[in-house]
Amino acid sequence: MWLMTEDRLESMAVGAGILGTGGGGNPYRGRLVARRHLREGRPITIAVPEEVPDDARVVSVGGMGAPVIGIERIIRGDEALCALRALEALMGAAFDYVIPGEIGGGNSTIPMVVSALSGLPVIDADGMGRAFPELQMSTFAVYGGACTPAALCDYKHNTVLFPNSADARTLERQARAVTVAMGGAASFALSPMSGAEMRARSVLGTLSFAEQIGAAVRGARLLHDDPIAAGARTAGGALLFRGKVVDVERRLVAGFARGNLRLEGVAEWRGDTLQIDFQNENLVARDGAGRLVATVPDLICVLDDTNGEPITTEIVRYGLRVSVLGIPAPHLLTTPQGLAVFGPRAFGYDADYLPLPAQYAAETVRRQA
Amino acid sequence: MWLMTEDRLESMAVGAGILGTGGGGNPYRGRLVARRHLREGRPITIAVPEEVPDDARVVSVGGMGAPVIGIERIIRGDEALCALRALEALMGAAFDYVIPGEIGGGNSTIPMVVSALSGLPVIDADGMGRAFPELQMSTFAVYGGACTPAALCDYKHNTVLFPNSADARTLERQARAVTVAMGGAASFALSPMSGAEMRARSVLGTLSFAEQIGAAVRGARLLHDDPIAAGARTAGGALLFRGKVVDVERRLVAGFARGNLRLEGVAEWRGDTLQIDFQNENLVARDGAGRLVATVPDLICVLDDTNGEPITTEIVRYGLRVSVLGIPAPHLLTTPQGLAVFGPRAFGYDADYLPLPAQYAAETVRRQA
Repeated sequence: MWLMTEDRLESMAVGAGILGTGGGGNPYRGRLVARRHLREGRPITIAVPEEVPDDARVVSVGGMGAPVIGIERIIRGDEALCALRALEALMGAAFDYVIPGEIGGGNSTIPMVVSALSGLPVIDADGMGRAFPELQMSTFAVYGGACTPAALCDYKHNTVLFPNSADARTLERQARAVTVAMGGAASFALSPMSGAEMRARSVLGTLSFAEQIGAAVRGARLLHDDPIAAGARTAGGALLFRGKVVDVERRLVAGFARGNLRLEGVAEWRGDTLQIDFQNENLVARDGAGRLVATVPDLICVLDDTNGEPITTEIVRYGLRVSVLGIPAPHLLTTPQGLAVFGPRAFGYDADYLPLPAQYAAETVRRQA
Repeated sequence: MWLMTEDRLESMAVGAGILGTGGGGNPYRGRLVARRHLREGRPITIAVPEEVPDDARVVSVGGMGAPVIGIERIIRGDEALCALRALEALMGAAFDYVIPGEIGGGNSTIPMVVSALSGLPVIDADGMGRAFPELQMSTFAVYGGACTPAALCDYKHNTVLFPNSADARTLERQARAVTVAMGGAASFALSPMSGAEMRARSVLGTLSFAEQIGAAVRGARLLHDDPIAAGARTAGGALLFRGKVVDVERRLVAGFARGNLRLEGVAEWRGDTLQIDFQNENLVARDGAGRLVATVPDLICVLDDTNGEPITTEIVRYGLRVSVLGIPAPHLLTTPQGLAVFGPRAFGYDADYLPLPAQYAAETVRRQA
């Protein structure tokens, strides 16, 4: 158990943005809200997964919806706590810990806001090890089931409860419809589980992993070193491409930001192109000949070439100079049952998962760091 | 308190179809399910509103969605009971009575199915005195508020709960989104209220009103009399038009059947036309010169010319010979606060409510019958 500080929060948000692989919502506002709580004396407690009792009551909290909505409508700040309290009322029992649904992007900061408001510790783990666009794309669902009972809450505190959905896809479909009816963004509390279940179903250590990546990037910036190389090293990833954004196609479809972007290479990639498809998050990258370079669930991270800041799919635009980082996916995502939900076929691609070259990964090293 | 019989159920379904004003879903299947329960020895109890104790716990049950879905997907039969039980679990208390949300169409039969399954009496009253397409178009909402807590349940028993929506329109928007995600049709339990609140917020006596209309129509059929004239007489309405359907435009939009139909007159209406716009239910009727003939909340009922069977908006088609009946709306719908929700402007028309000529109505007589 340790206390979040402003500095570690800042690093965590930078790293979470990178692990968002283009989606997960921008962590900027969530970080501001969490920082205000720290400054006003409301501590944010982080729990190491190993110290959570087997019978502790754990619940996942976060936000749902198209990231672009989050740019136009400021969050109230207590939506996720409101969802958590509604779920407690439904279940007739209080929770002991919260856990991020996804470490990538803004959903990394929402549990910390809940922690500041409620005193509940945030577990250093999550259900994705990155960001994904749909609720069933979660290790909580793949290794646990339906994710219900679940609660959604909007900025007016309208609450919707899902006590017993048949499966996580049903919950995704129905909760997504509510989210769109709530104006495109809502906060959730879902996947209640015990401490023992949490350890079996979560990608562990991802909050501190995000913090380490962010600290490396921030350190390199201060030292006028290469922040992208520093981030890649810490994340166990490697540079896939460096180029300029020459085309962006983006539509808001059924509550998702869908589209693709095209890069023209610079430096050793001059003359090459890279195309990246996204659905909130970056899904697959192809070279100029149409060959796959990287696929989900591996992380395809588009970073500002000058400072390593993540470029999310709702703000990427013509002319930006970017580096594309590939980071191998956590092990729980690449098992056969993991790939059935997280792999390229789950997103409609007629292609198998193409793992990033083995030398990129130091999976066990970085997970135990 | 009285027990529903097969014969009275049959009459009630015919009358409810007429009061459905083209929508509310076809009562045919609901009646078959209710009849099966009667034949298998599960009684359906009807309670007179006056005998319900002031502190009794009452809840409204029914179905939500585009009527056309109900033609293609057979109901399971216990969806509304499942919604009711989920609402009881949420509120931590059991209900004593059910009340139809709308007497018009299939929603008149669903509470009887719930009664047969649960033993709870059905109150002889409802929240519309007819059928309307949206949840906030209910006297429970106009004279009571948000209609929450509420529960929706689909044919797989997936349940969604709405503990605290800001208002009935918010509930309508969010529950409609869930209904569409549930495949276009779902059953609900909503507007929990006390017996005293029920009496202040309901259109009273509508179940027996429907039964009387249906009995008059059925009696006239047996006696080779004019069933439409008999129905009109009993309902306090009058014939607005008689003609042939020459055009139907119908689209399924956002979970509603929207469109219009055009009639060419026969008998004394020869040479005239009548156009009726609908959103699940018939909303306004205009003559050949475009002048309003009748508007919501008055009932515009399209009946098969040969036997007085109601023609719902999802089955109306070219070539049918029909009579159009106008029935004055219940008083609770035509107060200023009623018209704000039930009047033509609530449906986007730039027109005031045009009450049917006074001689049609014998409001107090028929309501006290």
